[in-house]
Amino acid sequence: MMIKQQNAFSHCKFEVPEIIFGRGLLSQVGSCARRLGGKKIFLVSDQGLFKAGWVDQVMQSLLDSGLRFAYYDQVTPNPKDWEVEQGAKEYIRHEADVIVGLGGGSAMDAAKGIAILASNGGRIRDFEGSNNINRPLPPLVLCPTTCGTGSDVSQFAVINDTQRRCKLTIMSRCVAPDISLTDPNTLQTLPGEYIGTTATDALSHAMEAFLSVAASSLTDVNAIRALRLISKSMEKAVKEHSPEDLENLARASLHAGMAFSNSLLGIVHALAHPIGGLYDANHGSVNAVLLQEVLSYDLPAVEDKLPELAFGMGYRTGGDTTSAAEMVQESLNRLLDASGAPRSLRSLGVAEEDLPALAKQAKQDICILTSPRQAEEDDLLAILKRAY
Amino acid sequence: MMIKQQNAFSHCKFEVPEIIFGRGLLSQVGSCARRLGGKKIFLVSDQGLFKAGWVDQVMQSLLDSGLRFAYYDQVTPNPKDWEVEQGAKEYIRHEADVIVGLGGGSAMDAAKGIAILASNGGRIRDFEGSNNINRPLPPLVLCPTTCGTGSDVSQFAVINDTQRRCKLTIMSRCVAPDISLTDPNTLQTLPGEYIGTTATDALSHAMEAFLSVAASSLTDVNAIRALRLISKSMEKAVKEHSPEDLENLARASLHAGMAFSNSLLGIVHALAHPIGGLYDANHGSVNAVLLQEVLSYDLPAVEDKLPELAFGMGYRTGGDTTSAAEMVQESLNRLLDASGAPRSLRSLGVAEEDLPALAKQAKQDICILTSPRQAEEDDLLAILKRAY
Repeated sequence: MMIKQQNAFSHCKFEVPEIIFGRGLLSQVGSCARRLGGKKIFLVSDQGLFKAGWVDQVMQSLLDSGLRFAYYDQVTPNPKDWEVEQGAKEYIRHEADVIVGLGGGSAMDAAKGIAILASNGGRIRDFEGSNNINRPLPPLVLCPTTCGTGSDVSQFAVINDTQRRCKLTIMSRCVAPDISLTDPNTLQTLPGEYIGTTATDALSHAMEAFLSVAASSLTDVNAIRALRLISKSMEKAVKEHSPEDLENLARASLHAGMAFSNSLLGIVHALAHPIGGLYDANHGSVNAVLLQEVLSYDLPAVEDKLPELAFGMGYRTGGDTTSAAEMVQESLNRLLDASGAPRSLRSLGVAEEDLPALAKQAKQDICILTSPRQAEEDDLLAILKRAY
Repeated sequence: MMIKQQNAFSHCKFEVPEIIFGRGLLSQVGSCARRLGGKKIFLVSDQGLFKAGWVDQVMQSLLDSGLRFAYYDQVTPNPKDWEVEQGAKEYIRHEADVIVGLGGGSAMDAAKGIAILASNGGRIRDFEGSNNINRPLPPLVLCPTTCGTGSDVSQFAVINDTQRRCKLTIMSRCVAPDISLTDPNTLQTLPGEYIGTTATDALSHAMEAFLSVAASSLTDVNAIRALRLISKSMEKAVKEHSPEDLENLARASLHAGMAFSNSLLGIVHALAHPIGGLYDANHGSVNAVLLQEVLSYDLPAVEDKLPELAFGMGYRTGGDTTSAAEMVQESLNRLLDASGAPRSLRSLGVAEEDLPALAKQAKQDICILTSPRQAEEDDLLAILKRAY
């Protein structure tokens, strides 16, 4: 087919931080921070996690390791430039030396932004794009507490530029933390509606990473494992909050993060970034709305990958691409239903007249570069309209 | 069953170096060494690779990046303590600052040993065991040129103690290199007999890592991918040396290395270390001889893992463990036949009267700790006798 796009990357690279995973391991944050040379730790989290008691656990762990700390919780969903800039001032004022981020993508991306400014100075928008960070960051430990994001292993930080009302994406190997530490116990206090939406973020990371033109065998194994875990546990985790299924989703988030950090993403995220910037909408929900339409758009360019994708989503095929495509679509639909996430842009409060501007911004997003099927502004607008 | 051993590790960690993989990428060694702060590079390789022209390519890449270098090729299979100690003296005499190891497990483990002594001083045997290295090593880039080993990603170095006539295993996160760079083109000059034997090393890494009690979802995905690649390409790579199949084996070695470095190994390697130490035998060949007998011993303790293992080895099962066991054994037998590796300890020149001493040493080897089925000296001796 004419629209089939060849894999443009015959070479691959794979880089992930040190990973620690297990129930109860939040008690190890102190020894991790100490091992990285910390004496005074800058702990970044949010008020929800404080109320749930997890911030206390981390503070106790820091004290147990003989460390002092300063606590910063001025972080909101879709973290804002000024929150990060304020945090960096606090970091410097407290003369801290290691940063610990505890939370979902917002708290962790804020921690990354603070780390960038702490050693590089300037405004966060100065670092937008690929490889624009010159000075090494302070050591960073990130502890995810949702079923999505992957920020704890990724080379990305996404911060809201409140002046331009858009998300700015910072990509650099130095924004990957030194240590990613997941304690799946933290998911037990995650409000129900966030289980499905953050797992949908991990689902879109895994699907886009697998279909990316920069995918490799190193990223594929992680993307497929993430899909299998999500397929197995999404429904039960959302309905019953069982520890096993929540742990599977935490594991899926980690695998999906390892995949997309190295193979990058595609149209779902290229579109989700401007939408999140303009509307302060929940990132997982935006992905949920876009995922099926983007998959339909990508299908003709990814036929050879569909049998493995279908396998990842819990089906067995004999390699017939038509049926694999149907299986993938059906399975995706089932997972999105189970997630409880919204299913239309309209329901997220997006205004129809904004769609052309969103398509225009998405065309400039770094994530568009690795889409398996090329997309012009018109194509992106058509996807948005179908998802509306 | 009574002999079923529970997975003792509910927590997991996963740590791999930066990985770069692709044909022709040996030309990037210079920029990697430069990025690590190098000005004068200590290049460790062997005479076979020099003759094949790969050492020249690396030298050219270093020069192209404006780097000076010293070259050290006093490395033999099963690298010896004195080779490493001599290399460290040369490193210091040349005032080098980054080490590049190019070769199979021997050249890479020698490079690791030199790095340990360069910054820590002493004799290599002082560092035997787990976490006995105190000072950080010089930056290290490792470039594998065989289908096995995994030393380029692992936290292990294995050096022959020529006085005690045994292999000493050094395990520490700091012996993992900074960068693992694989150029699968280098396999095209690998002598035919080494394709099968080094791929058998990767095969045993993948199988032991998957069955290890310290295995996790992070290591499993890599172990299974390694097995699939080996199952697909072993026979053709050995017979036809086709670039695609050789590349698959290089990729398998990488995946298997990522797996075993984090989940550790089992009885095959616990036995292979003393045999390699006493007889200077080819490591892949020793594994080939032991693998089937150790699998038979392990089977009753790993029943629940067999369906996935059989899948990794190219079969589909309905989850019935008896048939999965048969499939795994049959598939392993086919792969070992295809590898062309020897199939008995006797044919490797091992003396029957040495078996009790070898079993005794194996019981002390660090690899025995993660075996899925406990083994006493008697059990190890029985395995050796069956493999004789």
